[in-house]
Amino acid sequence: VTASTRQVDVEGLAQRARRGEPRAVARLISLVENDPARRREIARALVAGSGNAQVVGVTGSPGVGKSTTTAALIATLRKDDVRVGVLAVDPSSPFSGGALLGDRVRMQDHANDPGVFIRSMATRGHLGGLSAAVPQALRVLDGAGCDVVLVETVGVGQAEVEIASLADTTAVLLAPGMGDGIQAVKADRDGAEQVARDLRAMQALGGRHSEPGGWRAPIVMSVASRGEGIDDIQAAVAKHRDWLVRTGEMQRRREARAAAEVEALALESTRTQIAALHGSAALPTLARRVVAGELDPFEAADELLAAT
Amino acid sequence: VTASTRQVDVEGLAQRARRGEPRAVARLISLVENDPARRREIARALVAGSGNAQVVGVTGSPGVGKSTTTAALIATLRKDDVRVGVLAVDPSSPFSGGALLGDRVRMQDHANDPGVFIRSMATRGHLGGLSAAVPQALRVLDGAGCDVVLVETVGVGQAEVEIASLADTTAVLLAPGMGDGIQAVKADRDGAEQVARDLRAMQALGGRHSEPGGWRAPIVMSVASRGEGIDDIQAAVAKHRDWLVRTGEMQRRREARAAAEVEALALESTRTQIAALHGSAALPTLARRVVAGELDPFEAADELLAAT
Repeated sequence: VTASTRQVDVEGLAQRARRGEPRAVARLISLVENDPARRREIARALVAGSGNAQVVGVTGSPGVGKSTTTAALIATLRKDDVRVGVLAVDPSSPFSGGALLGDRVRMQDHANDPGVFIRSMATRGHLGGLSAAVPQALRVLDGAGCDVVLVETVGVGQAEVEIASLADTTAVLLAPGMGDGIQAVKADRDGAEQVARDLRAMQALGGRHSEPGGWRAPIVMSVASRGEGIDDIQAAVAKHRDWLVRTGEMQRRREARAAAEVEALALESTRTQIAALHGSAALPTLARRVVAGELDPFEAADELLAAT
Repeated sequence: VTASTRQVDVEGLAQRARRGEPRAVARLISLVENDPARRREIARALVAGSGNAQVVGVTGSPGVGKSTTTAALIATLRKDDVRVGVLAVDPSSPFSGGALLGDRVRMQDHANDPGVFIRSMATRGHLGGLSAAVPQALRVLDGAGCDVVLVETVGVGQAEVEIASLADTTAVLLAPGMGDGIQAVKADRDGAEQVARDLRAMQALGGRHSEPGGWRAPIVMSVASRGEGIDDIQAAVAKHRDWLVRTGEMQRRREARAAAEVEALALESTRTQIAALHGSAALPTLARRVVAGELDPFEAADELLAAT
C-alpha cells in the first residue's frame, strides 16, 4: 500500500487545519511533501481561507546562528500572541550532506505551544533548489491561521535566492569570521561593528540591500543565544510588513509568486507529458548525441517536443 | 536595424573561431548574449569540434579575491602554454546591483595574448540565475580550442550552484573574516589556517566537500595578490581533470549538462508557445485569481496549458 492509495480525508484535514489543529497541519504538510499525487487535491481544499501570513525567510551561512535566532524570534513573537509557523528547510544541495540539523533541537521548546507549528522539510528539487512542496506547505501554514511563517534554510546557495522569491520579508544573518558564527559575535564585538559598517557602506553605494519603492533594509545587531536584539528583529519584520501592505508591494509579491508557481506547474506538467510520450530514456539518449556532436541542443529539444 | 536583422555569416565566424581568431570568438559570444534569435544557428555551427575544454568554476563571496586569483591562474596556465578562456559572469541577482566589476581590470594584462579569451557576461536569467547564454558561450570557447575555461562569478547564491552544475571542476575561494577578503589572509594567516582546519574537519565528517566516486577536494592555501599557491591551484585543477577522465565522470557530467540544457530549451519553447497562444496578460490574470482564492494553482496551470 503506497501513500497515495491510502484513504485520506483531505477536505476534513483542511477544515481541522483551518481550526488550528496541530495534527491536521502536520499531516497535510507530510502529504504535500511525500505524496505528490495529492498536492492538487490539497491545493483545492486550501484555496479559500488563506492569505494572511507574512512569510519571513531566515537565511545566512552555515553556523551563523539561524536556528538560535529563529528559536529566539518564536519566543518573542509568542509573547505578543502572534501565531507562528516555522518551516526548517534542509537543502540537499550539491554542496551539502544535509546532516547539519542538530541545532533544530532548540526549537523543541515550543513543541507543546498550540500557537506554534514547526516542521522540517527536505528539499527534493533538482540543483539543490527548494522543493516544489514548499509553496504548498506555506499555504497549509497560512490556512492554519499563522500570522508569521519563518522559513529557515541551512546554508546559502540557490535556496537563499528562492527563499527571497517565496518570502514577503527576508532576514539575512551575517557574522564576522567564518565557521564560528555567533561565537564570533560574542567574542569579537568589534568584528560585528565592522560588518555593520560594511553593510551601511554598501547601502550608501546603493543597490544591494535596498528594495524598489524605497525600503532600506535595517541592520540589526543581535546575540541570539542571549536573546539580545531579538525584539529589534521582530520590530523590523513588523515594520517591513506595514511597508509591504502600505505600498501594495505585498499584493504585488503574492501575485508574482502565484504566477511563478502556476508557470512552474504548467511546465512540470509539460515535462511529465514529455516523459510519458518518450519514456524516461529519451532525454539521456538525446543528451548523449549532443555530447557526441551529432545534434545541437536546439535540435534535441525539438525532437523531445515533436510528439507532444 | 535590430541586431537580428543584420546580415551575419555565422558559419564563417564559427570557422574563424575554430582557428582561434579572437575577434570571431568575441563576436560569437556577443551574438549568443545579445541576439537570442541567432542562438540556434550558432549552436548548429558549433556542434562539431567541441568537447575538449575543462570548465572550471571559480566562486566565493564578494571580496574574497576571485578576480585576483583568476588573473594569477591565467598567468600560471599560460606559462605551460595552456589555452585559456575566461567568462566573468556578473549575476544581476535580486541581491546585487551588478556594479562590482572593477577588479576585472586586472585581467587586461592578458588582453594581447592570443592564447587567452576573456569575456564578461551579464546574467539575464530570472531569479538571478545564470543566463541561458552561458552554456552557449562555453561552447564557443570550447570550439575555439580552449583547454581550460574559467567561469568566474561575483557573489554567492544561485549562481554558485549553477556554476557547479555547468562546470567540470569548481574552485570555492574562502577567506577568514568577512568583507575584507584577501586582506585578511595576508593580515591574519592564523585565520586562514583556522579556515583550512575547519574545512578538513568538515571533510572528515564526510559529505560537504567530497564527490561521488572518491574525490576529496584538496584544500589549497594561496595569496593571489602575491602569486603564492597559484601553481598549487593549477595542479589541483589538472589532477581533478585526470580523475574526471579516468573515472568516466567527465563524460557523465557532460551528458547530465546536455540533458539539462535540452530540457531547459524544450520547456522554454513551451513557455514561448503558451505566451503566443494566450498573450502576455494571461499568466498575471490567472495569478491574481489564485491570490484572490478563486482558483488553486493547479487549476490555473491547467487553464494556461488548455489551448496549447
